[in-house]
Amino acid sequence: MKNKNNAVEPHTLVIFGATGDLTHRKLLPALYFLEHHMSLPKGFSIICAARRSKADAEYRNEAEKSIRQFSRIKVDDSCLRKLLSRIHYHQLEFNDAGHYTSLAEYMDKKRITRGGIIFYLATPPIFFDATIKNLALAKLAGISKKFSSNRVVFEKPFGNNFETAKNLNNEIRKAFHEKQIFRIDHYLAKELVQNLIVMRFANSIFEPMWNTNHIDHVQITVAETLGIEGRGSYYDKNGSLRDVVQNHLMQLLCLTAMECPKSLSADDIRDEKVKVLKAVAKSGNLRKESVKGQYISGIQDGKKVIAYRSEQDVRKNSATSTYFAIKFRIKNKKWKNVPFYVRTGKHLKDRATEIIINYKKPLSRLFMAKDYSLENNQLIIRVQPEEGIILRFNAKIPGNKILIDQVSMDFCHECKFGPNTAESYERLLYDIMRNDQTLFTRWDEVENSWKIIDGVRDAWHNIEPYFYEPGTWGPKEADLFIEKDGRKWAVPQKPSYSILLQK
Amino acid sequence: MKNKNNAVEPHTLVIFGATGDLTHRKLLPALYFLEHHMSLPKGFSIICAARRSKADAEYRNEAEKSIRQFSRIKVDDSCLRKLLSRIHYHQLEFNDAGHYTSLAEYMDKKRITRGGIIFYLATPPIFFDATIKNLALAKLAGISKKFSSNRVVFEKPFGNNFETAKNLNNEIRKAFHEKQIFRIDHYLAKELVQNLIVMRFANSIFEPMWNTNHIDHVQITVAETLGIEGRGSYYDKNGSLRDVVQNHLMQLLCLTAMECPKSLSADDIRDEKVKVLKAVAKSGNLRKESVKGQYISGIQDGKKVIAYRSEQDVRKNSATSTYFAIKFRIKNKKWKNVPFYVRTGKHLKDRATEIIINYKKPLSRLFMAKDYSLENNQLIIRVQPEEGIILRFNAKIPGNKILIDQVSMDFCHECKFGPNTAESYERLLYDIMRNDQTLFTRWDEVENSWKIIDGVRDAWHNIEPYFYEPGTWGPKEADLFIEKDGRKWAVPQKPSYSILLQK
Repeated sequence: MKNKNNAVEPHTLVIFGATGDLTHRKLLPALYFLEHHMSLPKGFSIICAARRSKADAEYRNEAEKSIRQFSRIKVDDSCLRKLLSRIHYHQLEFNDAGHYTSLAEYMDKKRITRGGIIFYLATPPIFFDATIKNLALAKLAGISKKFSSNRVVFEKPFGNNFETAKNLNNEIRKAFHEKQIFRIDHYLAKELVQNLIVMRFANSIFEPMWNTNHIDHVQITVAETLGIEGRGSYYDKNGSLRDVVQNHLMQLLCLTAMECPKSLSADDIRDEKVKVLKAVAKSGNLRKESVKGQYISGIQDGKKVIAYRSEQDVRKNSATSTYFAIKFRIKNKKWKNVPFYVRTGKHLKDRATEIIINYKKPLSRLFMAKDYSLENNQLIIRVQPEEGIILRFNAKIPGNKILIDQVSMDFCHECKFGPNTAESYERLLYDIMRNDQTLFTRWDEVENSWKIIDGVRDAWHNIEPYFYEPGTWGPKEADLFIEKDGRKWAVPQKPSYSILLQK
Repeated sequence: MKNKNNAVEPHTLVIFGATGDLTHRKLLPALYFLEHHMSLPKGFSIICAARRSKADAEYRNEAEKSIRQFSRIKVDDSCLRKLLSRIHYHQLEFNDAGHYTSLAEYMDKKRITRGGIIFYLATPPIFFDATIKNLALAKLAGISKKFSSNRVVFEKPFGNNFETAKNLNNEIRKAFHEKQIFRIDHYLAKELVQNLIVMRFANSIFEPMWNTNHIDHVQITVAETLGIEGRGSYYDKNGSLRDVVQNHLMQLLCLTAMECPKSLSADDIRDEKVKVLKAVAKSGNLRKESVKGQYISGIQDGKKVIAYRSEQDVRKNSATSTYFAIKFRIKNKKWKNVPFYVRTGKHLKDRATEIIINYKKPLSRLFMAKDYSLENNQLIIRVQPEEGIILRFNAKIPGNKILIDQVSMDFCHECKFGPNTAESYERLLYDIMRNDQTLFTRWDEVENSWKIIDGVRDAWHNIEPYFYEPGTWGPKEADLFIEKDGRKWAVPQKPSYSILLQK
């Protein structure tokens, strides 16, 4: 496995929280995939750390079971044995500094040197701070040169507002340089999201019209049909604004709105994303520019759904959002007068993540008579579930009279490239190992995103959400919210090519 | 059937050449379609004139047979009887003035008044001149007011150079006003050709980039797999330049290149087309700017093809073109430095009519490194056989590295609107009856088109063509011709949606 930037090849991966769901469902199967497809470096070892006491053999048995269950590729016995032989289990209380000293001793015993270690924090965020402090205390990390090829990986959420994120980051920066920090936003690993930069800048048909002269507005939707799936205690503290908008939706917004970066380097791309975040207008009446919703009980797809407030570990009078829609304005020349409508919700009618570029009306007045009632052109980047790109435009209906209907040109990603595009964690682990930060968020991205979200949260603090029935597109206030601007939400539709995917 | 422009509703259709192929295969089935779908006007009669002597009953029998054989809709007996009852046969030598007098007497006897008659010249072009003269002599046509609601219809070719076309037109104008003259170019009735004007001007995503700032060049291809199908004596006099380029290809060129017309009226559209023809550069070395080809003997799709010069009724040393490629330049601001490469040929590899807009390279230099070797974006308007619109652009190939491949967004016309878009002649006859000239060529279109073609013909007069094997894309000189400009012919490809059409 080759390393960019001539970084030291990592020889050890330490996973904190190795008995958790993330490790078993995502990380272990992704490690198996990497072992199978690119083979991990010679002598590479994996130390799995968690609170429970366990022998190596016991943990390896559990790991084998998870890999066999969750691997997306066929499991080959000899390759699996090779991977398992790299795995060691180490018992550790995240808050106990002494346990990190014993981890260091354990590593010494195993002759693991101090550079080239990846620390992966697959723990609940509440332990991030203590883990980092204790790594430094145990001299497993630090800002001196000998640790400079270590890396540290954080799952979301990175803080829960600007203040806590800043404090966490300050603590981390005592032991790691920004270049060593990998903050995961798994949306960035989705193929169609990565495709955005190619689509926009490797083609001449899109970018010249990608601005206020030609675009009326942009919509970005992350719609889920599922509810909070038993994560009441996490969800009730965060809501959709922190769970989805602050990270995934802001990233989609940045990639859609940014200017062309100087190069494809991680930092040049992230520089442009930060410029967008800094240009997001923070003034205005944030209550009026947004809609907070929460689902009530009802029937969705024939199944009974209980109200959010009746979910386990949720406060009975919770004002937490399970739906959020907001209108962002980006204060620069490119996007003058072009609103970005962004929304997300649980228990909505369909599952879909889409970026929709809504073009202006045609310049020509040839078809302006009311007989035609032209729809605006739309470019739809469908991130999931049926990945693809769709261009909706107007065409003549066959016949003697000139009648017009909206039709679409479709690009079906799976039809062209086949199914089974890599699982996000395969891609992310690979990039961590080769030291490529492109798909990870830099501190100033997190910082500026939280500053925006904090403002919205303050405006809605403790105020009742609008309620909506499960299986709908959110509260009726969300429709009124966009309709007062003379626009309407695009209804995510199964693309016409989806029939090809069913075969 | 409603009439635009308050024209007198036609009550009589006179078809000259009523025993010919065109009448039997196209006109009679189209008349049946109109009878079935819109019902022809009350009292509407059809006089079928030709040289052979025939009773009404005999001709009606033949007409019935043709309609049953060639109708694209199911034939309903009572509707067919209704149509046949409108049909009368009249024997007539096209060159014999006396026969037109007797036609006039025959019409008097049938109480057919002089206004509202459609004369359809389905005869060989050699009889156009005599027929018009004799109609005037017999006082069946003329420029006085009482004939002003008559119409006259011409099949192609309208002349065989500027001089003969002008003479023919002058003769016609002695008996008909331009408003009464319908010159057929059946390409204009094709759905995707009609769609061009909607596509370009009812959408905001295409027209802003439809100019020299964004388009590198345009290609227009009319490729046929068939040969001359026994029409040696016609074809050898004309060749592909007169048979296809002067009419069909120039019309496609005009509709692709014209500015937005003031309105959708026939004359406003034709005004813009004429502006394009007048702007086609006539200077330059026409030999160097074009390629003349002729097929030799060979094997195509497993079948033996004889050389063009061995075809029946073709001169043994014929220099007639069965392939023609030419580079047009349009001298205006919109198309400065944008060549239009236009080609047509017989016995080529595939059958396809396509207009291809080739965009420039992207402005951004982000993907300019040679690892990417970006293809230019292409918008393909596929007129036949599988009608549709295809946008070819660059996308990321799934995987860890940024690798790029050309993909396409497709609009499948038949998938959206169903099969069986109207047969050209149904549409054309309908438009003649409702007096809509949009899909017919005005004299100044014909005039300016011949002036261009005459120059090319003169340059190639009696000069040997380049030879090519059947089943190829024409002579190798045609490839060199475009390659010396640093470009290449787009290979017409079955669109990806064609698999949907096979079901």
